[in-house]
Amino acid sequence: MTASSNNIRVGILGASGYTGAELIRLLAQHPFTRISLLTGDRAAGKPIGDVFPHLGYLDLPVLTKIEDAKVDECDVIFCALPHGTTQEVIAGLPNHLKVVDLSADFRLHNLDTYAEWYGHAHQAPELQKEAVYGITELAREAVKKARLVANPGCYPTAAQLPLVPLVEAGQIDVDDIIIDAKSGVSGAGRAAKEGSLFTEVSEGIHAYGVASHRHAPEIEQGLTGAAGREIRVNFTPHLMPMNRGILSTAYVRLANGASAADLRETLAKRYAGEPFVRVLPLGQVPATRHVRGSNHTLIGVVADRLSGRAIIISVIDNLVKGASGQAVQNMNAMTGLPETTALSQPPMFP
Amino acid sequence: MTASSNNIRVGILGASGYTGAELIRLLAQHPFTRISLLTGDRAAGKPIGDVFPHLGYLDLPVLTKIEDAKVDECDVIFCALPHGTTQEVIAGLPNHLKVVDLSADFRLHNLDTYAEWYGHAHQAPELQKEAVYGITELAREAVKKARLVANPGCYPTAAQLPLVPLVEAGQIDVDDIIIDAKSGVSGAGRAAKEGSLFTEVSEGIHAYGVASHRHAPEIEQGLTGAAGREIRVNFTPHLMPMNRGILSTAYVRLANGASAADLRETLAKRYAGEPFVRVLPLGQVPATRHVRGSNHTLIGVVADRLSGRAIIISVIDNLVKGASGQAVQNMNAMTGLPETTALSQPPMFP
Amino acid sequence: MTASSNNIRVGILGASGYTGAELIRLLAQHPFTRISLLTGDRAAGKPIGDVFPHLGYLDLPVLTKIEDAKVDECDVIFCALPHGTTQEVIAGLPNHLKVVDLSADFRLHNLDTYAEWYGHAHQAPELQKEAVYGITELAREAVKKARLVANPGCYPTAAQLPLVPLVEAGQIDVDDIIIDAKSGVSGAGRAAKEGSLFTEVSEGIHAYGVASHRHAPEIEQGLTGAAGREIRVNFTPHLMPMNRGILSTAYVRLANGASAADLRETLAKRYAGEPFVRVLPLGQVPATRHVRGSNHTLIGVVADRLSGRAIIISVIDNLVKGASGQAVQNMNAMTGLPETTALSQPPMFP
Amino acid sequence: MTASSNNIRVGILGASGYTGAELIRLLAQHPFTRISLLTGDRAAGKPIGDVFPHLGYLDLPVLTKIEDAKVDECDVIFCALPHGTTQEVIAGLPNHLKVVDLSADFRLHNLDTYAEWYGHAHQAPELQKEAVYGITELAREAVKKARLVANPGCYPTAAQLPLVPLVEAGQIDVDDIIIDAKSGVSGAGRAAKEGSLFTEVSEGIHAYGVASHRHAPEIEQGLTGAAGREIRVNFTPHLMPMNRGILSTAYVRLANGASAADLRETLAKRYAGEPFVRVLPLGQVPATRHVRGSNHTLIGVVADRLSGRAIIISVIDNLVKGASGQAVQNMNAMTGLPETTALSQPPMFP
Repeated sequence: MTASSNNIRVGILGASGYTGAELIRLLAQHPFTRISLLTGDRAAGKPIGDVFPHLGYLDLPVLTKIEDAKVDECDVIFCALPHGTTQEVIAGLPNHLKVVDLSADFRLHNLDTYAEWYGHAHQAPELQKEAVYGITELAREAVKKARLVANPGCYPTAAQLPLVPLVEAGQIDVDDIIIDAKSGVSGAGRAAKEGSLFTEVSEGIHAYGVASHRHAPEIEQGLTGAAGREIRVNFTPHLMPMNRGILSTAYVRLANGASAADLRETLAKRYAGEPFVRVLPLGQVPATRHVRGSNHTLIGVVADRLSGRAIIISVIDNLVKGASGQAVQNMNAMTGLPETTALSQPPMFP
Repeated sequence: MTASSNNIRVGILGASGYTGAELIRLLAQHPFTRISLLTGDRAAGKPIGDVFPHLGYLDLPVLTKIEDAKVDECDVIFCALPHGTTQEVIAGLPNHLKVVDLSADFRLHNLDTYAEWYGHAHQAPELQKEAVYGITELAREAVKKARLVANPGCYPTAAQLPLVPLVEAGQIDVDDIIIDAKSGVSGAGRAAKEGSLFTEVSEGIHAYGVASHRHAPEIEQGLTGAAGREIRVNFTPHLMPMNRGILSTAYVRLANGASAADLRETLAKRYAGEPFVRVLPLGQVPATRHVRGSNHTLIGVVADRLSGRAIIISVIDNLVKGASGQAVQNMNAMTGLPETTALSQPPMFP
Repeated sequence: MTASSNNIRVGILGASGYTGAELIRLLAQHPFTRISLLTGDRAAGKPIGDVFPHLGYLDLPVLTKIEDAKVDECDVIFCALPHGTTQEVIAGLPNHLKVVDLSADFRLHNLDTYAEWYGHAHQAPELQKEAVYGITELAREAVKKARLVANPGCYPTAAQLPLVPLVEAGQIDVDDIIIDAKSGVSGAGRAAKEGSLFTEVSEGIHAYGVASHRHAPEIEQGLTGAAGREIRVNFTPHLMPMNRGILSTAYVRLANGASAADLRETLAKRYAGEPFVRVLPLGQVPATRHVRGSNHTLIGVVADRLSGRAIIISVIDNLVKGASGQAVQNMNAMTGLPETTALSQPPMFP
Repeated sequence: MTASSNNIRVGILGASGYTGAELIRLLAQHPFTRISLLTGDRAAGKPIGDVFPHLGYLDLPVLTKIEDAKVDECDVIFCALPHGTTQEVIAGLPNHLKVVDLSADFRLHNLDTYAEWYGHAHQAPELQKEAVYGITELAREAVKKARLVANPGCYPTAAQLPLVPLVEAGQIDVDDIIIDAKSGVSGAGRAAKEGSLFTEVSEGIHAYGVASHRHAPEIEQGLTGAAGREIRVNFTPHLMPMNRGILSTAYVRLANGASAADLRETLAKRYAGEPFVRVLPLGQVPATRHVRGSNHTLIGVVADRLSGRAIIISVIDNLVKGASGQAVQNMNAMTGLPETTALSQPPMFP
């Protein structure tokens, strides 16, 4: 399959959630793919427009039950199913399919860590070994060769993009990393939960999952890999009244004589030429609204007035770079297409 | 200039407002245009990223003062300047330029009506005569031949798209049209006004410009043209806490034996094949969030339980179909390009 | 029971919903009542703070199941239960209790109308006859003597307060009343429904229940009573992204030579001295945010530019004057207390 | 002046801003005060209802220019004027007046620090010495005797309430305090600034004033006082789309063998009996929406999964406990009234 092929057949398992809808939105602009399969259990038999009216005008297959899905008529599968059920579904897919999994099921390499945080033994340990953890910019070569990519979580993407290069460079103290993150509500998905009601979320903010959020071990896995030794971080997510966006404010202690300017320089070099990551001038800070709807990441570095410390702020759209956009980026890499294909829409502001 | 030309040079006068930014967002995806000029008086000499950080990564010319603008190096001008100042600016442009004006300056054909509603005599009456009022679907052939298109207002676009065909068909009583419209805040522009502050707008709604909004005569002009006799309407806009979107709820009395189903049928036929207008099944109603960021218009028709009446609801994104998207659509028509060029992005939800 | 009694024992059935919480918020400021009973089935056995943390600091009884509720230890019952189940609960209450019912169960006097709109025969027709429909300002004397008050719906309160006096005065055409209403999300209650999620509601607006909302017959009942003959109205509600507030824009045709100024005058006279209803100067329009959190109603009258028509805009906080505030106002009237007791908090803006 | 006096005459200088309006909202419920003076330069000669329609029904004096204000007819002055101009105004007030100043002018005891952060020498250094910095719970006895209280900033109130007792107890490392704060937009005041527009703030979040916000030295002053030696902190504020509320997430390193439970215990003891401060059970976190509109502070302590660290989250309504509510609380203390007078309204949710 190459960039010249104009008919990569794509299946989306779990098309009735927000990441499913976002995949459709992005792939509708993709010149080399064709959506040939959409599953959605509760809405099986219905057109996508019944579930997502904004997509109703597109020419798309009717939703099917997952057990009726003709997956072998696909070349690539995006799996946007809930955590836990995904691993068995993917284990059952034909071997020749390329798969990008947006769930958490294949993100943690360590099976014990998985069991500890998800409360049960992994059901597809062999696949877990094979899966490539795909923050594209940090794992490009592996992604290109992968058959199964574990698409990273939204918070972990926002946190690791700035922190991994700094840990690799030895410029920050890996034992003193605090990540205060703020997310929009779409990260909670489309499930009808009291805590996600407009009335419960608007006009307010609160922390949740403090010291217990499942994205913590995912971030730690990435930083541990970069450091070459076990790392723990403070990760404190907050829920705030906006649809899209994650802002991650990382508080770090400088190491080995590095300055905030050095950190900024390391990141600027690391991401020079990357189409989706932009490092701001030293002292400038990014806003989530400036990446809304796009696959962009913005990173700002500011010197702390506490000497020997710096503040690193990164922003993404959680549904795009934090989910479906990165999934398309990974698919592009896996199929030999330019990574920016279908992802070149500018952010939408206001 | 034809579709084969890949270098339509575009100038945007007034690039530091929201419609200017939205033109840039859309044109960044346009394969046949190149932005060669951006003006912005207060920000002259600065890159667009200083004014709109979300566009800072694009390769664009630095902002210039309008008096320094090399307009003769452009093929098409989008004019996104404030009402009143625009007419003289456009009058001063070289004759060979195609112009899409997003201000209100050339929308009202009748010079007396203009003077009455805008408080001064028109400064370029000859141009006013030449200008084509460009709701693309309703004036396509004229737009194609036009040199100067007056891009319609946001409310008038939302109101006229459903009502003009029904007036033409004689299916509604033209003396009993009530238009209750609800708009997001971006319609007020980027000017720093107390009334547009977050704290003054969020968590509330109010009507404004009741019986005195300048979009009333614009709507009436369109309906008058369709009816062949003078029409007045009730037009009552409301400001509500969202960035983008207009929902127009029109209350109409049926005429000549028509039913709500007949109205729906008239609209469905009129807009069959139109890429940007979709008429919903009878009884279904549209939501602004289902057109967000797109050039789409959705129209729903519902039978009133008052006999002999119907309710017609239409939605657009005020910055796209209500401003910059329709402007690009008009430019495409004026330059012989497919109208959908650069406008095929699906709506963004949530 | 008189104003001198400082220990009216109050029970709230259904305290885990928003109107229940709002009753507690208001009654916490009431010098002559004591909350002695709170029921909440799913949260039975828990303190109110588990359900509504913002009320956790108050000294309140633990939530009980409704079947365990010691209602005979109460003097007044507020019933904030779902429609349909309420009528049997109230039928089972001891006869000496005064009851304010916030559900729709006792609002419609006509049992056929009830059956038509609610899909089943009424289960307590005798009580239905006894119940007083309590827009306090419009039914004060009956409320004072009532044992059971049907607390009006939020939309009907906002619509009837301005329209009933005008219908009574014969100043508007009763066959041409259009009510375009906009509501915040708390009107949908606290049930976990997809349509009430933050992501589904924020940044958008849509109409719902067009020509089929159950508040239509309730409004019609009030206007029919005022007119002395059967009236139908257009009632079109819209859901918009705010927590609290209803804005009702009524489009009316003037009758019997009345002008908009006459309408305004009729309302100003009718509500002179009323502590909770304020009629604005002719041409001024109200905003929901100016009544937020209060029991206030603001009414504005504007002359339409269509001759012979006027626009009447009214605003309330749907949880206060549209539900719990009016319920407390009714209780005050029923127990001989000044109506403003516990309701004198100014609106909260911003 | 004692609690028995029912006519404390209150003047509000700067009544046309949000803190001024909030003072009016709260004092309208105060049984022992009477507002006898309101100033507002741009709106001089107008009733308050022209500036704040939600307060238009109250019986209040017309706004006057500050130079025309009859301050000697007041007993207490609330000064809600902009920073910088306040010091001279207060210096010019008669000596017998009690003054609560809501600006930053008298908050910093150290004149050099003031000059460094505010860019000019202090104009009333003698008053600066006299002023009592009034977080009521932390300075009650001094406030009671004060003639001039410097009402604390919103962020400093939220940060110091939990941190001062912990620093005093020696339970946290004073050299490693990181305060990540999130604020609603009303903190920016009512000035018409582009950055406060609905369109610029909604649907997003960004940090601002990183390492340079003027509330940093104010927080440091309080912690320095508690520690007995110079302290610096990281203070990183973020602006988010809500009207009211501040959430402060403090990341601290435990000291002297203390555990997170010990911290929680210290705070619970320190604030036992305080009507406006509530310490949640260990591990529970507060939400800003649960204090909205009230003078409450909620504090939660959570053990970090990083050993030896804890997370302390506090919330206030920035306009109430962070401004006008605490000002009234201070006035109550200064005049011998119960501190809760006029401040007993429960929070408003949703």
